[in-house]
Amino acid sequence: MDKNEIKALRDEAYRHLTTELLPFWTSRMKDEKYGGYITHFDENGNDTGEDEKSLIAQTRCLYTLSSAHRAGYGDGELAELAKHGADFIINRMWDEEYGGFYWMMDRKGNVKIDEKIIYGHSFAIYSLSEYTIATGDPRGIEYARKVFDLIQKYCTDTMYGGYWEMFHRDWTLKGPGSAGGDRKTLDVHMHLMEAFTTLYEASHEDVHRRKLLEVIDILNKRINHPEYKTGIPQFFKDWTIAHQIKFDIIWGWDRFSEDGQKGNATDNTCFGHNAEFAWLLNNALEVMGADKQKYMELFRIIFDHTVDNGIDREYGGVFVEGPHSGGVYDREKEFWQQAEVLIGMLDGVLLLNDEKYWDAYKNVHRFVFDKVINKGVGEWYPLLTRKGEPIWTHMGHSWKINYHTVRSMIQSIDRMDALMKKM
Amino acid sequence: MDKNEIKALRDEAYRHLTTELLPFWTSRMKDEKYGGYITHFDENGNDTGEDEKSLIAQTRCLYTLSSAHRAGYGDGELAELAKHGADFIINRMWDEEYGGFYWMMDRKGNVKIDEKIIYGHSFAIYSLSEYTIATGDPRGIEYARKVFDLIQKYCTDTMYGGYWEMFHRDWTLKGPGSAGGDRKTLDVHMHLMEAFTTLYEASHEDVHRRKLLEVIDILNKRINHPEYKTGIPQFFKDWTIAHQIKFDIIWGWDRFSEDGQKGNATDNTCFGHNAEFAWLLNNALEVMGADKQKYMELFRIIFDHTVDNGIDREYGGVFVEGPHSGGVYDREKEFWQQAEVLIGMLDGVLLLNDEKYWDAYKNVHRFVFDKVINKGVGEWYPLLTRKGEPIWTHMGHSWKINYHTVRSMIQSIDRMDALMKKM
Repeated sequence: MDKNEIKALRDEAYRHLTTELLPFWTSRMKDEKYGGYITHFDENGNDTGEDEKSLIAQTRCLYTLSSAHRAGYGDGELAELAKHGADFIINRMWDEEYGGFYWMMDRKGNVKIDEKIIYGHSFAIYSLSEYTIATGDPRGIEYARKVFDLIQKYCTDTMYGGYWEMFHRDWTLKGPGSAGGDRKTLDVHMHLMEAFTTLYEASHEDVHRRKLLEVIDILNKRINHPEYKTGIPQFFKDWTIAHQIKFDIIWGWDRFSEDGQKGNATDNTCFGHNAEFAWLLNNALEVMGADKQKYMELFRIIFDHTVDNGIDREYGGVFVEGPHSGGVYDREKEFWQQAEVLIGMLDGVLLLNDEKYWDAYKNVHRFVFDKVINKGVGEWYPLLTRKGEPIWTHMGHSWKINYHTVRSMIQSIDRMDALMKKM
Repeated sequence: MDKNEIKALRDEAYRHLTTELLPFWTSRMKDEKYGGYITHFDENGNDTGEDEKSLIAQTRCLYTLSSAHRAGYGDGELAELAKHGADFIINRMWDEEYGGFYWMMDRKGNVKIDEKIIYGHSFAIYSLSEYTIATGDPRGIEYARKVFDLIQKYCTDTMYGGYWEMFHRDWTLKGPGSAGGDRKTLDVHMHLMEAFTTLYEASHEDVHRRKLLEVIDILNKRINHPEYKTGIPQFFKDWTIAHQIKFDIIWGWDRFSEDGQKGNATDNTCFGHNAEFAWLLNNALEVMGADKQKYMELFRIIFDHTVDNGIDREYGGVFVEGPHSGGVYDREKEFWQQAEVLIGMLDGVLLLNDEKYWDAYKNVHRFVFDKVINKGVGEWYPLLTRKGEPIWTHMGHSWKINYHTVRSMIQSIDRMDALMKKM
């Protein structure tokens, strides 16, 4: 590895973060009239006017601003903007009667969907904890704790372990099938690991650490493939593998055929998730001061699977998904998978000191900066063809916001700085 | 079955309950000076002066009084005495800082052991819920709900399912081995089923029902022997069977050798627990309005195991324990096992309409009334030889109180009334 090369990529990321990405958001996200954040922007960064404020997008914006302020960016402006969003989340989205946050509001702050969705609540814990760490405002950790308590009361399966995810407003479980009430997913358990990590970082409470250790155990022993250590997307109550279906409440851009099924519904893993899981696990161990040695082999297996199967050596970037045993089903490029693999590959270099992860990083970095970033606008295209032509072109949406992109830049810069220090 | 015979035994039980058992307690249990109940009495019913008010004994007394009042006994006197105990439990035993009830107080209401023990908390939920059902005092269900929430937050194992049981005051888990922090037990899960049943009966809250269904599942799929359906006493985190050991915090009269081990530490089941589990499960299904048909075979297997192995056909009564596959290790007679088998055998008659359970009931009934009851005093001897000579002679203690004896009489009278109505 060449120090100058690292420096050049690090500086490219820094320029993008500070002169394009953060300004894209800070210049247009503040809803002065109704509070909270405006989150829907077209290819040119113009507000599309969509009348939605989703729990995910509001909390992810709060995370982005808080984490960037904590990392030293923005000269205080980001903290102020974070407080603006925390006010809306706490004062308008909290359900005073049953507890928990509503899933979807309109811009004015009226409830559109009152259901309690754990995917969104994991981001509430994550962002509110980060907000208190970054700014000292005690309301963040206060509400993060409340959500944690509600999840422990209403969402655990005390028979088979793990967490249920889809609830009505009053925390009764939703029905089976596409309503999601009979499924347990990789997605939610991974994001609970992410959330409990930052919650514990903010609280240092024993029970937060204990539940973090347990969810790590669930991911390793139930959700990751026993041989390939790749993530399996969906399960039934007793952890038998479920056909991967589309839920009525969507939270991302997973693409399904018209009948709501995946073509390879029971043998499918997503490269972005695997790399994201590995670096989030590494971060959790670091926050807990836990021993990493026993996970080194796991990190190697996961990062190697990503490098061997997920990286497109011809056109650059990360494929969408493939079978657990290796290979690729879907060769298009999703923005968030690029973002997470960047961080994962740098963790691979730092943890395992193997140049192949650096080569993979450079590959994806190049693809992101040459193809994924919408030049002159500043955010990333959400979905591109294998070769890098944009398919979807919106810059912001309830399910496509700044959390992956900004976090990827902050975390990658940090890791490249650490890498150079070691040289 | 002969109706007159049933009537005679029913009236014998009624006389014992109303003229001996309840008066034994109501005449001496009220601590006028410090509040709560006096619970330590010698063979003659004299206060031994032991300076203890345990969470179990206080809550079990509250259950006894509340349930007897609810069943129509006492002309209001029992409800008043129940309120006296609820005041002490709520005002003196509740930990305002960390939540939950202290394990052991002195008579004056000072804390002697501040640990949070789930066995005791299951009785807190059970008795406080019964108290509200019986008297309408809303404080009972209010504190039962608080305890339920704390247990869901601090005690579940979200990886392997089930509940941890032994905690420090601040709800951090105690250490392994005799500290109990690495064990899961039949005892606690069975008493949580009992507690959640009455909690749900009082609250009709969906989450209370859901957790009740889950703990029934845990008992059937993890704790009961897969073939014999007999209860296995202790497990490790992942439900592998643990050698049955004695805990530092004791809650009953289980007898161990000097090294704190059972002679047959991994193949041991207790007849009283099995029958108690079965009738409590039947009660849970009834309270939920759930279908009993799918459990009929289970009831038959458990009751048959009790009849075939637990009943002493020579001297009468119920043995202590034996191997899962059949047979007996310990032929002494514990009071509480007689009490629970009485109810269980009557449920056997009512559910399965088989005369052999009635014969077993009569056997144990006779042994109780001829040998176990301390004549002229009114309570039961805690432990007797196989032939029925008293070994331990105290009438009351932190771990030997009125819950089994009074409940056994109330429940048996109810069942014999139902039996006669069907004839």
